[in-house]
Amino acid sequence: MRKVAIIGCGMSKFGEHWDSSFRELVVEAGLKAIQDANISGEKIDAGFVGTMASGSFIGQEHIGALIADYMGLNPVPITRVEGACASGGLALRQGFMAVASGLHDIVVVGGIEKMTDLDGNMVTDVLGGAGDQEWELFLGATFPGIYALMAKRHMHEFGTTEEMMASVAVKNHKHGSKNKYAQYQNEITIDTVLNSKMVADPLKVFDCSPVSDGAAAVVLAPLELAHSFTKKPVEILASAQASDTIALHSRESLTGLKATRIAADKAYKMAGVGPSDIDLVELHDCFTIAEIMAIEDLGFFKKGEGGKAALEGRTAINGEIAVNTSGGLKSCGHPVGATGIKQAVEVTWQLRGDAVGRQVKDAKIGMTHNVGGSGATAVIHLFGKRS
Amino acid sequence: MRKVAIIGCGMSKFGEHWDSSFRELVVEAGLKAIQDANISGEKIDAGFVGTMASGSFIGQEHIGALIADYMGLNPVPITRVEGACASGGLALRQGFMAVASGLHDIVVVGGIEKMTDLDGNMVTDVLGGAGDQEWELFLGATFPGIYALMAKRHMHEFGTTEEMMASVAVKNHKHGSKNKYAQYQNEITIDTVLNSKMVADPLKVFDCSPVSDGAAAVVLAPLELAHSFTKKPVEILASAQASDTIALHSRESLTGLKATRIAADKAYKMAGVGPSDIDLVELHDCFTIAEIMAIEDLGFFKKGEGGKAALEGRTAINGEIAVNTSGGLKSCGHPVGATGIKQAVEVTWQLRGDAVGRQVKDAKIGMTHNVGGSGATAVIHLFGKRS
Repeated sequence: MRKVAIIGCGMSKFGEHWDSSFRELVVEAGLKAIQDANISGEKIDAGFVGTMASGSFIGQEHIGALIADYMGLNPVPITRVEGACASGGLALRQGFMAVASGLHDIVVVGGIEKMTDLDGNMVTDVLGGAGDQEWELFLGATFPGIYALMAKRHMHEFGTTEEMMASVAVKNHKHGSKNKYAQYQNEITIDTVLNSKMVADPLKVFDCSPVSDGAAAVVLAPLELAHSFTKKPVEILASAQASDTIALHSRESLTGLKATRIAADKAYKMAGVGPSDIDLVELHDCFTIAEIMAIEDLGFFKKGEGGKAALEGRTAINGEIAVNTSGGLKSCGHPVGATGIKQAVEVTWQLRGDAVGRQVKDAKIGMTHNVGGSGATAVIHLFGKRS
Repeated sequence: MRKVAIIGCGMSKFGEHWDSSFRELVVEAGLKAIQDANISGEKIDAGFVGTMASGSFIGQEHIGALIADYMGLNPVPITRVEGACASGGLALRQGFMAVASGLHDIVVVGGIEKMTDLDGNMVTDVLGGAGDQEWELFLGATFPGIYALMAKRHMHEFGTTEEMMASVAVKNHKHGSKNKYAQYQNEITIDTVLNSKMVADPLKVFDCSPVSDGAAAVVLAPLELAHSFTKKPVEILASAQASDTIALHSRESLTGLKATRIAADKAYKMAGVGPSDIDLVELHDCFTIAEIMAIEDLGFFKKGEGGKAALEGRTAINGEIAVNTSGGLKSCGHPVGATGIKQAVEVTWQLRGDAVGRQVKDAKIGMTHNVGGSGATAVIHLFGKRS
């Protein structure tokens, strides 16, 4: 396999874009990435895009072809990939394979979702399609309820508190306040979270990531060619993916995601590194409890100690491991198909030293962790500074 | 890149499966393919599945994880790929890349769609999402209407007749009558087609492929390992994909698909062969005019002469080029995400000599041609006998 590098990246602001269409968001992010890579469209050999549910959100499937068309890239082949909220991460993985295999040289990979054109109840229903439609959604189990079950069990087994979960949201809003692309750029306090409206006990509205519009894109090239495009290539050191049962009730444990642990093991082995080598991680905090479980499952803290670590500030930018410097899903926003690519964009900026106002000092190795549904898909990438 | 082979394949019967769920169809096709490859599930490293619109058809996204779960394959990573009616072909392409890159050895690739749970008008709307939702579907242009425009123009420019188009349906029903997996196994006559109900002038109901349920699957392995699993491996000689404008009104010409021509050129170059080397092709006859345009665009007949060639029987099993020996989309059925994989299954059976009752004599090289929407995506694979 050839080594693969990111040579350019870009994204739209995440938020409620009532004045921009799906197509416009794609073009904005895609053009920024292409310009950042200093290439023209003619150089692009192929593309991949992660989108979860455009058919339900905007009545449009066949997103790959739509993007080739609206980006002016025809006849370049562009393929849509879907794995619920992990769609972006999976698209990155396909792009990685396309370059690693030698089939293509320059590949653009995007993620996009336009969610705010539907009302909230309909969005919740569409997102429910990421879980088990027949055994969960049909019976009324939507995602806040599913993650609330995990939170309750984590609290029961390990003494994790609502305050610990709230501290994740406070930290991510603080990080997001330094990110001009974030949906919410305001800081909050523990009390903001604890006093906010209950969604599914114990998760309150500030424990939940928002409904968002947004797009993000990266440009990939063989590492051996990367320096001809950029002075600051970022190598993709590993790409790993794992599956678990789609329904929560079939799992061995509710206090962590097995797919995350398996994918992380594979990724660490592929790159020849371990948790202590990672300087920063963009991980899948769809709910605050999800971040606490993830920092345990990824090996940064022991199982059961994630909540305490969050409360003690050990996951802040200047902590032991910088978690979600972009603001994460909570504060930067969560246009589901775009999230996995936004994570790669943030890690790229960090490894290049371009994350102004929220830069992790001397960052050399970064990780992205993107989850589909309640953990039935986990996809993990590791990235290394090569400038 | 490593060479890649198909070592096993299987499919469900295509048709109206009111008594089988999406999950059951997937498992049926997947298990048949795995058994045909003489492997156990533990050997499988990864999977890809093509599905166009499960979110709209059955309220379920995250199909890759669902399949890993219901096939008993966790934690094997399985990824869904979508490119409208070309979803199956695109999934095969991702599987090809995954093995060619060296990232995975044994990869299962499936295609699935469950369409008959919705009523016909809703199905037409969902399928409209394969075209340009904003500029076509929203204004009332559904797929029969879009292909009717192409048919009218082909008739105007080249003198193609309704009888020529009807002959495509007659031939495909004749082929399908020999295929126990086909949705329609009855022969029809030119009059059956010409006297059937008008859908969108000049296309009558027998010019159109049906709404179908079904699933198909193949198992891929590196060619160098293929003989340890099967005596009859089939090599994937080429994989090529091209994009065109998603809306018909932006095209240079209405009498053929540019994406098909570009993808075919690439595929022929990759395999070092030409149209005259191809013994059989499973091509995308979503409407009878689509088959006539495709046999021209793929280089088997000159532009404008496809209709005459069809009427003269030159595309039958014992003709110059055997077209759609499975019965094609018209007679075998068109569960959209499954079609691209069913095409690969049929070509595999033909190259192995297993297509009982419809076998193309001495078949050595086969082709699949899978189209998304009205031609915004075309994906072509070439296959060679290696036994």
